[in-house]
Amino acid sequence: MDDILIIGTVAFDTIETPFGRVEKALGGSATYASFAASFFSRPALISVIGKDFPKEYLDLLRKRGISLEGLKVDDKTFHWEGFYEYDMNEAKTRRTELNSLENFRVQVPESFKDTKYVFLANIDPEQQLETLRQMEKPELVVLDTMNFWITNKKKHVLEIMKKADVLLLNDGEARQLFGTVSLVKAANDALSLGPKAVIIKKGEHGALLFTKNKHFSAPGYPLENIKDPTGCGDSFGGAFIGYLAKTKDMSERNFRKAIIYGSVVASHNAEDFGLNRLVKLKMDDIEKRYGEFQDMREF
Amino acid sequence: MDDILIIGTVAFDTIETPFGRVEKALGGSATYASFAASFFSRPALISVIGKDFPKEYLDLLRKRGISLEGLKVDDKTFHWEGFYEYDMNEAKTRRTELNSLENFRVQVPESFKDTKYVFLANIDPEQQLETLRQMEKPELVVLDTMNFWITNKKKHVLEIMKKADVLLLNDGEARQLFGTVSLVKAANDALSLGPKAVIIKKGEHGALLFTKNKHFSAPGYPLENIKDPTGCGDSFGGAFIGYLAKTKDMSERNFRKAIIYGSVVASHNAEDFGLNRLVKLKMDDIEKRYGEFQDMREF
Repeated sequence: MDDILIIGTVAFDTIETPFGRVEKALGGSATYASFAASFFSRPALISVIGKDFPKEYLDLLRKRGISLEGLKVDDKTFHWEGFYEYDMNEAKTRRTELNSLENFRVQVPESFKDTKYVFLANIDPEQQLETLRQMEKPELVVLDTMNFWITNKKKHVLEIMKKADVLLLNDGEARQLFGTVSLVKAANDALSLGPKAVIIKKGEHGALLFTKNKHFSAPGYPLENIKDPTGCGDSFGGAFIGYLAKTKDMSERNFRKAIIYGSVVASHNAEDFGLNRLVKLKMDDIEKRYGEFQDMREF
Repeated sequence: MDDILIIGTVAFDTIETPFGRVEKALGGSATYASFAASFFSRPALISVIGKDFPKEYLDLLRKRGISLEGLKVDDKTFHWEGFYEYDMNEAKTRRTELNSLENFRVQVPESFKDTKYVFLANIDPEQQLETLRQMEKPELVVLDTMNFWITNKKKHVLEIMKKADVLLLNDGEARQLFGTVSLVKAANDALSLGPKAVIIKKGEHGALLFTKNKHFSAPGYPLENIKDPTGCGDSFGGAFIGYLAKTKDMSERNFRKAIIYGSVVASHNAEDFGLNRLVKLKMDDIEKRYGEFQDMREF
């Protein structure tokens, strides 16, 4: 097992979907990403929580072998309140209390500065840039972001994109950032910034991988019941880099496999609220669904 | 080569997209479907045109080996005027002149009543029902429809669905008809009506095939420039049944291949206005893109 450094948010999530509600559930981009990555590799989580963060949540992460050395404690935990309407395609924010996230300055522990695999999960792009400044020479940098940063810190988003090897964007973000309805054009524009691969996440419609001359289309898993899509993108990214760190193969062919593992973990994640499904998930479940993905795209 | 009976509309299409405009171009569901099917089999087109229908349009169809014995001439040709906005996902109707379509009563020529393969392309479901009444014992009935009929003649739509072997629906229609956001639920509801296969067309996101215990996900072809999506669904259906009639293999596995051929022809169709692209399309182009579809879903 190899180490992965994962920076992002750790949050309390209060979520309402047509299928229920949870209050102050454990959430955040780094939480989902680390949890998903832990099925394949050993993640070190870099983030900040508050003094109000329950010990049981810390235990949940530790039990998965996630290093919390880089997890600062300061003030109160970041709290996001949001809801999904019937079509579940987009999280709508009701309230955001930044709390400890407001003054968070990333500090990578000395022992992790030579980590080869880095996942810059969704967080302020200035902190993503700062993370790379502190790292020695990562072999693979995977970057995620969200529409909020594209709208409010586009300059920094473009700057960090130039330093990433793999870019994760959902389809709406890709279209917004590059001002085109064509995902092919958006992906080509993104590639021209420098990354060697661009992955466009399309929720129920699967994911697309664009590299210089190749194109891969990963199917979406046909879920009959989606309970809560929170964290699906983060779990996708976490499992993606987790599988790459485990297999140490950075070929386009292996990226494809990593995308399917990402899709498998993300599709499981949507089946229950918060981390509930991932907490119970076993490697057997993952391999079984991976097989289903193989079958459903065969012709 | 085997015969396919295709009933649907033949139309003048006046179309505007962000990339141009055509006036009274040759269109209609049966036109696109027959044209696409003709790459694989010998279609017989059942529809109605007006006395104003140009000879060059008839020649275009005849040259593809499409039988026009069942094409009535009466009054003026059906004329549809529509436009697409920037995202190209949905045709918006500006004006519809039904003309000869208004009093059209289907009449299958005697020599085609024993045709084994029947495509009920988009047209009034009462005419689709009437077609089946006149047919002897088709081996495969493929059915397409559209939101207009689901809204205005739902009873007839459900009645004809019970008599079809394969149902084509786009994602919006499937959700509308079965009142659910879940495509899996919609597909299962559709299967419970009787058809052995349900195909959900998702435009740029590809297509899904649902049968009793199996699921197939066909990728969308990554088009950089879509000029005019008119007729893509009809071409998809035409190529789908055309390939099945050619290969005479009604297995789920062969349905998958037929869906890819449908996707190949439909993706070409979107590259130019009206029938312009299909008129120039060669079997080599089809096989080449089929190969690309194989490559882009391999992992």
